[in-house]
Amino acid sequence: MPDKVRLHPAIDDGVVAGSESFSGGTLTCLCTDRPVKVRIDGQVAHNHACGCTKCWKPAGAIFSIVAVAPTANVHVTENGDKLAVVDPSALIQRHACKACGAHMHGPVERDHAFKGLTFVHTELSKDKGWQAPQFAAFVSSVIESGVPPREMDGIRGRIREVGLEPYDCLSPALMDVLATFAARKAGMLRE
Amino acid sequence: MPDKVRLHPAIDDGVVAGSESFSGGTLTCLCTDRPVKVRIDGQVAHNHACGCTKCWKPAGAIFSIVAVAPTANVHVTENGDKLAVVDPSALIQRHACKACGAHMHGPVERDHAFKGLTFVHTELSKDKGWQAPQFAAFVSSVIESGVPPREMDGIRGRIREVGLEPYDCLSPALMDVLATFAARKAGMLRE
Ligand SMILES: [Zn+2]
Ligand SMILES: [Zn+2]
Repeated sequence: MPDKVRLHPAIDDGVVAGSESFSGGTLTCLCTDRPVKVRIDGQVAHNHACGCTKCWKPAGAIFSIVAVAPTANVHVTENGDKLAVVDPSALIQRHACKACGAHMHGPVERDHAFKGLTFVHTELSKDKGWQAPQFAAFVSSVIESGVPPREMDGIRGRIREVGLEPYDCLSPALMDVLATFAARKAGMLRE
Repeated sequence: MPDKVRLHPAIDDGVVAGSESFSGGTLTCLCTDRPVKVRIDGQVAHNHACGCTKCWKPAGAIFSIVAVAPTANVHVTENGDKLAVVDPSALIQRHACKACGAHMHGPVERDHAFKGLTFVHTELSKDKGWQAPQFAAFVSSVIESGVPPREMDGIRGRIREVGLEPYDCLSPALMDVLATFAARKAGMLRE
Protein backbone atom coordinates (compact mmCIF):
# COMPACT_ATOMS: atom_id res chain seq x y z
CA MET A 1 0.00 0.00 0.00
CA PRO A 2 1.54 3.33 -1.02
CA ASP A 3 2.13 6.04 1.56
CA LYS A 4 -0.58 8.64 1.91
CA VAL A 5 0.03 11.60 -0.42
CA ARG A 6 1.48 14.39 1.73
CA LEU A 7 0.57 17.96 0.81
CA HIS A 8 1.41 20.14 3.83
CA PRO A 9 1.45 19.33 7.56
CA ALA A 10 -1.36 21.82 8.29
CA ILE A 11 -3.84 19.91 6.10
CA ASP A 12 -2.46 16.35 5.87
CA ASP A 13 -4.60 15.28 8.84
CA GLY A 14 -7.60 17.35 7.73
CA VAL A 15 -8.39 21.03 7.50
CA VAL A 16 -8.89 22.73 10.89
CA ALA A 17 -11.74 25.26 10.94
CA GLY A 18 -10.94 28.87 11.88
CA SER A 19 -12.70 30.93 14.51
CA GLU A 20 -15.30 33.58 13.63
CA SER A 21 -14.21 35.66 16.60
CA PHE A 22 -10.45 35.44 15.96
CA SER A 23 -8.88 38.84 16.47
CA GLY A 24 -5.31 38.33 15.23
CA GLY A 25 -2.02 36.88 16.34
CA THR A 26 1.73 36.85 15.95
CA LEU A 27 3.96 35.06 13.44
CA THR A 28 7.41 33.99 14.64
CA CYS A 29 10.21 32.82 12.35
CA LEU A 30 12.03 29.51 12.92
CA CYS A 31 15.10 31.03 14.58
CA THR A 32 15.70 30.20 18.25
CA ASP A 33 18.01 33.20 18.54
CA ARG A 34 16.41 36.62 18.01
CA PRO A 35 13.36 35.41 16.04
CA VAL A 36 11.56 37.84 13.76
CA LYS A 37 8.03 38.56 14.98
CA VAL A 38 5.14 39.93 12.93
CA ARG A 39 1.80 40.88 14.45
CA ILE A 40 -1.38 40.65 12.39
CA ASP A 41 -4.42 42.59 13.60
CA GLY A 42 -7.59 40.64 12.87
CA GLN A 43 -8.33 37.61 10.71
CA VAL A 44 -6.68 36.72 7.38
CA ALA A 45 -8.59 36.12 4.12
CA HIS A 46 -8.32 33.82 1.08
CA ASN A 47 -6.16 31.33 2.97
CA HIS A 48 -5.18 28.57 0.54
CA ALA A 49 -2.69 25.87 -0.35
CA CYS A 50 -0.38 27.07 -3.13
CA GLY A 51 1.77 24.91 -5.42
CA CYS A 52 3.80 27.72 -6.96
CA THR A 53 7.58 27.57 -6.75
CA LYS A 54 7.99 30.96 -5.05
CA CYS A 55 5.92 30.65 -1.88
CA TRP A 56 7.74 29.52 1.28
CA LYS A 57 7.06 25.92 2.34
CA PRO A 58 8.07 24.03 5.45
CA ALA A 59 10.63 21.24 4.90
CA GLY A 60 9.14 18.30 2.99
CA ALA A 61 5.89 20.02 2.00
CA ILE A 62 4.99 20.24 -1.69
CA PHE A 63 2.42 23.00 -1.08
CA SER A 64 2.63 26.21 0.88
CA ILE A 65 -0.30 27.51 2.90
CA VAL A 66 -0.68 31.23 2.36
CA ALA A 67 -3.28 33.89 3.15
CA VAL A 68 -3.62 37.65 2.82
CA ALA A 69 -4.25 40.43 5.33
CA PRO A 70 -4.62 44.15 4.71
CA THR A 71 -1.07 45.52 4.70
CA ALA A 72 -2.14 48.13 7.26
CA ASN A 73 -2.85 45.27 9.70
CA VAL A 74 0.63 43.70 9.43
CA HIS A 75 3.39 44.95 11.75
CA VAL A 76 6.97 43.76 12.15
CA THR A 77 7.39 43.96 15.92
CA GLU A 78 10.76 42.29 16.62
CA ASN A 79 14.10 41.76 14.85
CA GLY A 80 12.99 43.21 11.52
CA ASP A 81 16.68 43.83 10.75
CA LYS A 82 16.92 40.11 9.88
CA LEU A 83 14.47 40.48 6.97
CA ALA A 84 15.37 40.85 3.30
CA VAL A 85 13.22 40.84 0.14
CA VAL A 86 13.68 37.53 -1.72
CA ASP A 87 13.02 38.87 -5.24
CA PRO A 88 12.53 42.64 -5.59
CA SER A 89 11.16 42.16 -9.13
CA ALA A 90 8.29 39.91 -7.97
CA LEU A 91 4.73 41.18 -7.53
CA ILE A 92 4.75 39.92 -3.94
CA GLN A 93 7.61 41.50 -2.00
CA ARG A 94 8.39 38.43 0.11
CA HIS A 95 10.32 39.49 3.19
CA ALA A 96 12.28 36.43 4.41
CA CYS A 97 14.38 35.89 7.51
CA LYS A 98 17.99 35.85 6.32
CA ALA A 99 18.87 33.29 9.02
CA CYS A 100 16.09 30.66 8.81
CA GLY A 101 14.53 31.43 5.42
CA ALA A 102 10.92 31.71 6.59
CA HIS A 103 8.86 34.26 4.64
CA MET A 104 7.42 36.60 7.27
CA HIS A 105 5.30 39.02 5.18
CA GLY A 106 4.84 39.75 1.50
CA PRO A 107 3.12 43.03 0.64
CA VAL A 108 1.83 43.85 -2.86
CA GLU A 109 2.75 47.47 -3.51
CA ARG A 110 2.52 47.60 -7.30
CA ASP A 111 -0.61 48.73 -9.21
CA HIS A 112 -2.51 45.44 -9.11
CA ALA A 113 -5.83 43.94 -7.98
CA PHE A 114 -4.04 42.76 -4.83
CA LYS A 115 -2.39 46.10 -4.01
CA GLY A 116 -2.69 46.86 -0.30
CA LEU A 117 -2.72 43.18 0.68
CA THR A 118 0.13 41.30 2.34
CA PHE A 119 0.73 37.55 1.95
CA VAL A 120 1.40 35.69 5.20
CA HIS A 121 1.84 32.10 6.44
CA THR A 122 -0.31 31.58 9.54
CA GLU A 123 1.46 28.29 10.34
CA LEU A 124 4.25 30.49 11.73
CA SER A 125 1.88 31.46 14.54
CA LYS A 126 1.03 29.48 17.67
CA ASP A 127 -2.28 31.34 17.96
CA LYS A 128 -5.40 29.28 17.22
CA GLY A 129 -8.33 30.45 15.13
CA TRP A 130 -6.76 31.56 11.86
CA GLN A 131 -8.98 31.07 8.80
CA ALA A 132 -8.78 27.53 7.40
CA PRO A 133 -7.44 26.98 3.87
CA GLN A 134 -10.30 27.48 1.37
CA PHE A 135 -8.90 25.93 -1.85
CA ALA A 136 -5.66 24.82 -3.52
CA ALA A 137 -4.08 27.08 -6.16
CA PHE A 138 -1.41 26.54 -8.83
CA VAL A 139 -1.60 22.78 -8.33
CA SER A 140 0.07 21.83 -11.63
CA SER A 141 3.03 24.05 -10.67
CA VAL A 142 4.27 21.51 -8.10
CA ILE A 143 5.71 19.66 -11.13
CA GLU A 144 8.09 22.61 -11.50
CA SER A 145 9.38 21.89 -7.99
CA GLY A 146 10.24 18.32 -8.98
CA VAL A 147 7.01 16.39 -8.31
CA PRO A 148 6.75 13.64 -10.97
CA PRO A 149 3.82 14.31 -13.36
CA ARG A 150 2.48 10.77 -12.80
CA GLU A 151 1.73 11.71 -9.17
CA MET A 152 -0.68 14.52 -10.13
CA ASP A 153 -3.86 12.41 -10.15
CA GLY A 154 -3.10 11.26 -6.60
CA ILE A 155 -2.30 14.80 -5.50
CA ARG A 156 -5.52 16.28 -6.93
CA GLY A 157 -7.47 13.38 -5.42
CA ARG A 158 -5.92 13.92 -2.01
CA ILE A 159 -6.63 17.69 -2.17
CA ARG A 160 -10.31 16.91 -2.77
CA GLU A 161 -10.19 14.30 0.01
CA VAL A 162 -9.16 16.90 2.60
CA GLY A 163 -12.06 19.06 1.40
CA LEU A 164 -10.36 21.56 -0.88
CA GLU A 165 -10.93 22.16 -4.59
CA PRO A 166 -7.76 22.05 -6.74
CA TYR A 167 -7.13 24.81 -9.27
CA ASP A 168 -4.18 25.32 -11.59
CA CYS A 169 -4.46 29.07 -11.22
CA LEU A 170 -6.32 30.89 -8.40
CA SER A 171 -9.95 30.24 -7.40
CA PRO A 172 -12.72 31.40 -9.76
CA ALA A 173 -13.63 34.24 -7.37
CA LEU A 174 -10.06 35.55 -7.32
CA MET A 175 -9.57 35.01 -11.06
CA ASP A 176 -12.70 37.12 -11.61
CA VAL A 177 -11.20 39.83 -9.37
CA LEU A 178 -8.03 39.82 -11.49
CA ALA A 179 -10.00 39.91 -14.76
CA THR A 180 -12.20 42.71 -13.43
CA PHE A 181 -9.12 44.74 -12.55
CA ALA A 182 -7.70 44.15 -16.05
CA ALA A 183 -11.04 45.05 -17.65
CA ARG A 184 -11.28 48.28 -15.66
CA LYS A 185 -7.74 49.28 -16.67
CA ALA A 186 -8.55 48.55 -20.31
CA GLY A 187 -11.81 50.53 -20.13
CA MET A 188 -13.82 47.37 -20.85
CA LEU A 189 -15.93 47.31 -17.69
CA ARG A 190 -19.52 48.15 -18.66
CA GLU A 191 -20.86 48.51 -15.12
CA MET B 1 -37.44 35.00 -16.95
CA PRO B 2 -33.94 35.97 -18.11
CA ASP B 3 -32.65 34.86 -21.49
CA LYS B 4 -30.60 31.69 -21.57
CA VAL B 5 -26.91 32.45 -21.15
CA ARG B 6 -25.32 32.27 -24.60
CA LEU B 7 -21.74 31.00 -24.85
CA HIS B 8 -21.12 30.10 -28.49
CA PRO B 9 -23.53 28.87 -31.21
CA ALA B 10 -21.73 25.51 -31.49
CA ILE B 11 -22.54 24.58 -27.87
CA ASP B 12 -25.58 26.71 -26.95
CA ASP B 13 -27.94 23.91 -27.94
CA GLY B 14 -25.70 21.18 -26.52
CA VAL B 15 -22.35 19.71 -27.43
CA VAL B 16 -22.36 17.56 -30.58
CA ALA B 17 -20.23 14.42 -30.33
CA GLY B 18 -17.42 13.94 -32.85
CA SER B 19 -16.81 10.87 -34.96
CA GLU B 20 -14.15 8.27 -34.11
CA SER B 21 -13.57 7.64 -37.80
CA PHE B 22 -13.35 11.28 -38.87
CA SER B 23 -10.48 11.74 -41.30
CA GLY B 24 -10.25 15.50 -41.73
CA GLY B 25 -11.93 18.36 -43.52
CA THR B 26 -11.65 21.86 -44.88
CA LEU B 27 -12.03 25.23 -43.15
CA THR B 28 -13.38 28.10 -45.26
CA CYS B 29 -13.28 31.77 -44.21
CA LEU B 30 -16.42 33.93 -44.17
CA CYS B 31 -15.72 35.68 -47.50
CA THR B 32 -18.08 35.00 -50.40
CA ASP B 33 -15.44 36.24 -52.84
CA ARG B 34 -12.22 34.23 -53.02
CA PRO B 35 -12.52 32.54 -49.61
CA VAL B 36 -9.39 31.25 -47.89
CA LYS B 37 -9.42 27.46 -47.59
CA VAL B 38 -7.40 25.36 -45.16
CA ARG B 39 -7.38 21.57 -45.25
CA ILE B 40 -6.76 19.58 -42.07
CA ASP B 41 -5.69 15.94 -42.45
CA GLY B 42 -7.22 13.85 -39.68
CA GLN B 43 -8.99 14.72 -36.45
CA VAL B 44 -8.23 17.67 -34.15
CA ALA B 45 -7.37 17.36 -30.43
CA HIS B 46 -8.05 19.30 -27.22
CA ASN B 47 -11.04 21.09 -28.74
CA HIS B 48 -12.38 23.54 -26.15
CA ALA B 49 -14.30 26.72 -25.52
CA CYS B 50 -11.90 29.58 -24.76
CA GLY B 51 -12.70 32.89 -23.05
CA CYS B 52 -9.43 34.65 -23.80
CA THR B 53 -9.51 37.96 -25.60
CA LYS B 54 -7.24 36.89 -28.47
CA CYS B 55 -9.03 33.90 -29.98
CA TRP B 56 -11.38 34.57 -32.88
CA LYS B 57 -15.09 34.38 -32.05
CA PRO B 58 -18.14 34.53 -34.30
CA ALA B 59 -20.28 37.68 -33.92
CA GLY B 60 -22.12 37.75 -30.58
CA ALA B 61 -20.26 34.83 -28.99
CA ILE B 62 -18.44 35.41 -25.69
CA PHE B 63 -16.33 32.25 -26.10
CA SER B 64 -14.34 30.93 -29.02
CA ILE B 65 -14.20 27.23 -29.84
CA VAL B 66 -10.65 26.24 -30.67
CA ALA B 67 -8.72 22.98 -31.17
CA VAL B 68 -5.25 21.94 -32.22
CA ALA B 69 -3.91 19.78 -35.03
CA PRO B 70 -0.31 18.85 -35.80
CA THR B 71 1.04 21.71 -37.91
CA ALA B 72 2.18 19.16 -40.52
CA ASN B 73 -1.49 18.24 -41.05
CA VAL B 74 -2.64 21.81 -41.78
CA HIS B 75 -2.44 23.08 -45.36
CA VAL B 76 -3.57 26.41 -46.83
CA THR B 77 -5.06 25.28 -50.15
CA GLU B 78 -6.73 28.41 -51.58
CA ASN B 79 -6.30 32.19 -51.42
CA GLY B 80 -3.54 32.16 -48.79
CA ASP B 81 -2.51 35.60 -50.08
CA LYS B 82 -5.42 37.02 -48.05
CA LEU B 83 -3.89 35.87 -44.75
CA ALA B 84 -1.88 38.02 -42.33
CA VAL B 85 -0.55 37.30 -38.82
CA VAL B 86 -2.65 39.20 -36.24
CA ASP B 87 0.11 39.65 -33.63
CA PRO B 88 3.61 38.48 -34.58
CA SER B 89 4.72 38.72 -30.93
CA ALA B 90 2.08 36.22 -29.71
CA LEU B 91 2.87 32.57 -28.96
CA ILE B 92 0.13 31.51 -31.37
CA GLN B 93 0.79 32.95 -34.84
CA ARG B 94 -2.87 33.55 -35.68
CA HIS B 95 -3.24 33.85 -39.46
CA ALA B 96 -6.43 35.84 -40.12
CA CYS B 97 -8.21 36.63 -43.36
CA LYS B 98 -7.60 40.33 -44.00
CA ALA B 99 -11.05 40.67 -45.59
CA CYS B 100 -13.42 38.87 -43.16
CA GLY B 101 -11.27 38.62 -40.03
CA ALA B 102 -11.67 34.86 -39.45
CA HIS B 103 -8.60 33.19 -37.94
CA MET B 104 -7.75 30.33 -40.31
CA HIS B 105 -4.73 28.70 -38.65
CA GLY B 106 -2.45 29.55 -35.74
CA PRO B 107 0.80 27.57 -35.55
CA VAL B 108 3.06 27.58 -32.47
CA GLU B 109 6.62 27.82 -33.75
CA ARG B 110 8.43 29.02 -30.64
CA ASP B 111 10.19 26.69 -28.14
CA HIS B 112 7.12 25.73 -26.09
CA ALA B 113 5.17 22.68 -24.93
CA PHE B 114 2.75 23.35 -27.83
CA LYS B 115 5.43 23.73 -30.52
CA GLY B 116 4.41 21.84 -33.67
CA LEU B 117 0.70 22.30 -33.02
CA THR B 118 -1.62 24.65 -34.90
CA PHE B 119 -4.75 26.20 -33.41
CA VAL B 120 -7.86 25.98 -35.62
CA HIS B 121 -11.60 26.72 -35.43
CA THR B 122 -13.54 23.74 -36.76
CA GLU B 123 -16.76 25.77 -36.92
CA LEU B 124 -15.32 27.21 -40.15
CA SER B 125 -15.82 23.78 -41.73
CA LYS B 126 -19.02 22.28 -43.12
CA ASP B 127 -17.60 18.76 -42.59
CA LYS B 128 -19.23 16.74 -39.81
CA GLY B 129 -17.36 14.64 -37.24
CA TRP B 130 -14.84 17.07 -35.74
CA GLN B 131 -14.00 16.36 -32.08
CA ALA B 132 -16.50 17.91 -29.67
CA PRO B 133 -15.37 20.60 -27.20
CA GLN B 134 -13.91 18.89 -24.11
CA PHE B 135 -13.79 21.74 -21.54
CA ALA B 136 -13.92 25.53 -21.21
CA ALA B 137 -10.67 27.45 -20.67
CA PHE B 138 -9.85 30.97 -19.51
CA VAL B 139 -13.43 31.49 -18.37
CA SER B 140 -12.73 34.47 -16.09
CA SER B 141 -11.10 36.24 -19.04
CA VAL B 142 -14.47 36.95 -20.69
CA ILE B 143 -14.69 39.82 -18.18
CA GLU B 144 -11.81 41.41 -20.08
CA SER B 145 -13.97 41.37 -23.21
CA GLY B 146 -16.68 43.35 -21.42
CA VAL B 147 -18.82 40.65 -19.77
CA PRO B 148 -20.11 42.08 -16.44
CA PRO B 149 -18.53 40.21 -13.47
CA ARG B 150 -21.98 39.59 -11.94
CA GLU B 151 -22.82 37.31 -14.90
CA MET B 152 -19.97 34.88 -14.13
CA ASP B 153 -21.96 32.55 -11.88
CA GLY B 154 -24.54 32.12 -14.63
CA ILE B 155 -21.85 31.61 -17.25
CA ARG B 156 -20.00 28.93 -15.23
CA GLY B 157 -23.34 27.28 -14.45
CA ARG B 158 -24.33 27.22 -18.10
CA ILE B 159 -20.92 25.79 -19.11
CA ARG B 160 -21.48 22.89 -16.68
CA GLU B 161 -25.05 22.53 -17.96
CA VAL B 162 -23.86 21.86 -21.51
CA GLY B 163 -21.50 19.24 -20.07
CA LEU B 164 -18.17 21.06 -19.98
CA GLU B 165 -16.00 21.86 -16.96
CA PRO B 166 -15.03 25.54 -16.61
CA TYR B 167 -11.39 26.44 -15.92
CA ASP B 168 -9.80 29.86 -15.56
CA CYS B 169 -6.62 28.60 -17.20
CA LEU B 170 -6.34 25.43 -19.34
CA SER B 171 -7.50 21.95 -18.27
CA PRO B 172 -5.51 20.10 -15.56
CA ALA B 173 -4.08 17.72 -18.19
CA LEU B 174 -2.80 20.60 -20.33
CA MET B 175 -1.59 22.60 -17.33
CA ASP B 176 0.43 19.53 -16.29
CA VAL B 177 1.90 19.39 -19.81
CA LEU B 178 2.96 23.03 -19.52
CA ALA B 179 4.43 22.51 -16.05
CA THR B 180 6.27 19.38 -17.20
CA PHE B 181 7.80 21.32 -20.08
CA ALA B 182 8.89 24.09 -17.68
CA ALA B 183 10.29 21.51 -15.22
CA ARG B 184 12.27 19.78 -17.98
CA LYS B 185 13.75 23.10 -19.13
CA ALA B 186 14.71 23.94 -15.54
CA GLY B 187 16.26 20.51 -15.00
CA MET B 188 13.70 19.72 -12.29
CA LEU B 189 12.15 16.62 -13.86
CA ARG B 190 13.20 13.61 -11.80
CA GLU B 191 11.87 10.93 -14.18
ZN1 LIG C 1 14.51 33.37 11.29
ZN1 LIG D 1 -12.14 35.85 -45.48
